[in-house]
Amino acid sequence: MSTSKSDLVAAEQPRGFADRLGATAAAEERIVNAVGAVYEQWGFERLETPAVEYTEALGKFLPDLDRPNEGVFSFMDEERWLSMRYDLTAPLARFAAQNWKDLPKPFRRWQTGPVWRNEKPGPGRFRQFVQCDADTVGSDNPASDAEIIAMAAAALEAVGVPRSGYTFKVNSRRILNGVLLGIGLEGGNAEATRLTVMRAIDKLDRLGVDGVAALLGTGRKDESGAFTEGAKLDAKNVQRVIDFVTLSTDTRAGVIAGLERIVGDNDEGRAGLKELAGIDAVLSALGIGDDRAKFDTSVVRGLEYYTGAVYEAELTLPIEENGKAVRFGSVGGGGRYDDLVARFTGERVPATGFSIGVSRLVAAQARLGLGAAAQEAPLAIVLALDGARMGDYLAMAAELRASGVRAEAYLGGSGMKAQLKYADKRNARVAVIQGGDEVAKGTVTIKDLKAGAEMSQLAGDDREAWNKAREKVQVEAPRAELVAAVQRMLAG
Amino acid sequence: MSTSKSDLVAAEQPRGFADRLGATAAAEERIVNAVGAVYEQWGFERLETPAVEYTEALGKFLPDLDRPNEGVFSFMDEERWLSMRYDLTAPLARFAAQNWKDLPKPFRRWQTGPVWRNEKPGPGRFRQFVQCDADTVGSDNPASDAEIIAMAAAALEAVGVPRSGYTFKVNSRRILNGVLLGIGLEGGNAEATRLTVMRAIDKLDRLGVDGVAALLGTGRKDESGAFTEGAKLDAKNVQRVIDFVTLSTDTRAGVIAGLERIVGDNDEGRAGLKELAGIDAVLSALGIGDDRAKFDTSVVRGLEYYTGAVYEAELTLPIEENGKAVRFGSVGGGGRYDDLVARFTGERVPATGFSIGVSRLVAAQARLGLGAAAQEAPLAIVLALDGARMGDYLAMAAELRASGVRAEAYLGGSGMKAQLKYADKRNARVAVIQGGDEVAKGTVTIKDLKAGAEMSQLAGDDREAWNKAREKVQVEAPRAELVAAVQRMLAG
Repeated sequence: MSTSKSDLVAAEQPRGFADRLGATAAAEERIVNAVGAVYEQWGFERLETPAVEYTEALGKFLPDLDRPNEGVFSFMDEERWLSMRYDLTAPLARFAAQNWKDLPKPFRRWQTGPVWRNEKPGPGRFRQFVQCDADTVGSDNPASDAEIIAMAAAALEAVGVPRSGYTFKVNSRRILNGVLLGIGLEGGNAEATRLTVMRAIDKLDRLGVDGVAALLGTGRKDESGAFTEGAKLDAKNVQRVIDFVTLSTDTRAGVIAGLERIVGDNDEGRAGLKELAGIDAVLSALGIGDDRAKFDTSVVRGLEYYTGAVYEAELTLPIEENGKAVRFGSVGGGGRYDDLVARFTGERVPATGFSIGVSRLVAAQARLGLGAAAQEAPLAIVLALDGARMGDYLAMAAELRASGVRAEAYLGGSGMKAQLKYADKRNARVAVIQGGDEVAKGTVTIKDLKAGAEMSQLAGDDREAWNKAREKVQVEAPRAELVAAVQRMLAG
Repeated sequence: MSTSKSDLVAAEQPRGFADRLGATAAAEERIVNAVGAVYEQWGFERLETPAVEYTEALGKFLPDLDRPNEGVFSFMDEERWLSMRYDLTAPLARFAAQNWKDLPKPFRRWQTGPVWRNEKPGPGRFRQFVQCDADTVGSDNPASDAEIIAMAAAALEAVGVPRSGYTFKVNSRRILNGVLLGIGLEGGNAEATRLTVMRAIDKLDRLGVDGVAALLGTGRKDESGAFTEGAKLDAKNVQRVIDFVTLSTDTRAGVIAGLERIVGDNDEGRAGLKELAGIDAVLSALGIGDDRAKFDTSVVRGLEYYTGAVYEAELTLPIEENGKAVRFGSVGGGGRYDDLVARFTGERVPATGFSIGVSRLVAAQARLGLGAAAQEAPLAIVLALDGARMGDYLAMAAELRASGVRAEAYLGGSGMKAQLKYADKRNARVAVIQGGDEVAKGTVTIKDLKAGAEMSQLAGDDREAWNKAREKVQVEAPRAELVAAVQRMLAG
């Protein structure tokens, strides 16, 4: 294969995709292992499904409906469209429907793996990321939502988040439905008004109470003078929605009491309240108080398939962003999706589940100093000074490994100086050197690279002091005592 | 979301893709962990690259050139073609080229993850499978090939393959090139003849020595009378190729001596011989004798990017297939690909690496009874007999987990009989029962499900014996002693 300059292929990963080397790759795995161990301990069974599903099996539940052809990566098989999974929930629904007859019911499974989103890449926004999910399929009991929330809390603590450092925000989509029904927005005719009300609610953070109230009523003129038509609710109903979105979230009991006044007298609202009360009871029984799990009616979640309870995990620990302290923010979320399996079977199978964003937790560990840092075993590198003696060098590395030391022989073609530079770049602790002199004497020289680096800094350019320091950081030992000498150095 | 029967989506995974639940999923992970630990111990650094690469970065190196649009799954980004990786080597070449300046050289990395092949699915032939690779990039020293082979041997032993149960077959593509040059097949004009010779060699298993000799000479008529044109080599050269393909593989030294006679006096042949001699020397220094690594000139490997040494790991342990004992066969392979990085940089970067087929090893473990079986922790299930008391049941499960017992509460809506059936299906060891009686007495009943199943078999349909047996398999304990009682039962 000969390659002329003009034939060269660009060496770059696709936009929005990232490589991870060494400690970063290991960090994701440590988190998945710790979270998976919690899920197993709570009785969830591990599942793996393929990265690829029939496009129709995944369905269209991503938030950005404006771009119907985007959101997922899709391609054509011989005869059918396939898509890369955008989450682990849609494939679970397919799996559960396919195997429902044979599965224990409820079916409790956990799963981890990458998911893909065909979104515009941006800073810190990747098109492949790892999720770690747990779901209970076949239970409509709010206890199963509460259990998942409590387990997700245990998972966060398992990766080093302190008990005071996170909170879960819990809501039910049925509550908002109940509010909308309570103000008379029922049926297909009210669809447009419902949408206007939901959009107004969504702007609370940005516009404040008065702005939202205007959008719920006749409409709102912004600073530029542009007028946005309102939902045209009457004053009483505007107040009802405002009461709803400004409800204090201090205690779960307080939210339930408040909602009982607001949500109104309809089946949907009552079902939502019953759901929240059930979740509250079990969370309390599991010792999860108002500090760790709040009811917050502003929580919506982006995925369309949710039908009831929705929940979000937020790290409340502060990080600095643009010079001011902000909460680290969401590290996962989930909710109840009672209709997803029915897409396949026609029969309603209630389900609920939670997804931890593994990359978010890696970032949290790094930025907040949580959890144990990756402890790489110290590395010994046997230098290769004579091409005819490669077998000897590799045999020395093998001896070291047999004694439990991580070890390798240098396999490049460069001289001693470059080899020590290589050892440095590999962050090696020890270099083993057997040049002609040592071979003649039947010895090896062992160099403590860490101590060497420290001492060479200390000694500056005083040649004599440097030579003296060097004597301390390297020892010569009989070849037969290689392993013992390296172990002594690593222990010292 | 309402779904009418006619709107139902088929619940099936795409053809050629598989789900894995519980022990099977765990088995793959155990193998990856064991193999990865060996790679780390040998000084290889973990890398993760995305599942998706620019199509041109992956190149076309899969064996089935007849189907240029198949082999990989590809799709269009906004502006460019992307493909799912078909192995972990092509992405490594892209990564190494992209980061060459900053990497330690040689660059030693290991990587695991799924790869995808857009092939016609067949029995036992999957379109997604997991590989576990190690590669050394930046060394043309045959010691690096030998090291990878020795490490792959250590990896096989780490997953339970006995030392007598595997062998590596090693060859160099340069040897065949040397043979072809030695019989005068040089340059573009000889391309067609070279191809005919290689196809003839490839048919040794099927046609035997005489058939191959005919194809190397004037040609061969098969049983149906159809005539295949031969390569038209003269008798001396036919004999030379036959000597080559029938070389005894008993000892590596023997193969080298034999090849010295056959391969001829050209640079390519000499380079191949030097390569094999270098590999032999290091394998011997590492204690890998002729039993564990053979030189076998019939080994070719399918991927097009190999330029020198190629190697294959074969499990020699017998399995039964169609009533007769056969070797389990290949579980991985690799080789030297000195030109792959140059596709990006224009500069030759020699590299070599090995890929273990993780699913193949899972199958080997299962069929050959190798390695430790998955040891699932015993599971305790708290039955839920009163919907109003879910918090109590979940709190009992939480207490058990806090003491280290894997535990859950039943979350479905069925009665006691169905709950015990569920516990059975989950393979639970213990059921915890607190009905109205127990609540009144402040106790819990703990049932040993395994002993129960055994005893109920023993007692047959003798009602009294059955009742007596039942007393032995369940105990009643004060609620406060739940954890101690369950632990006693699990220990007993």
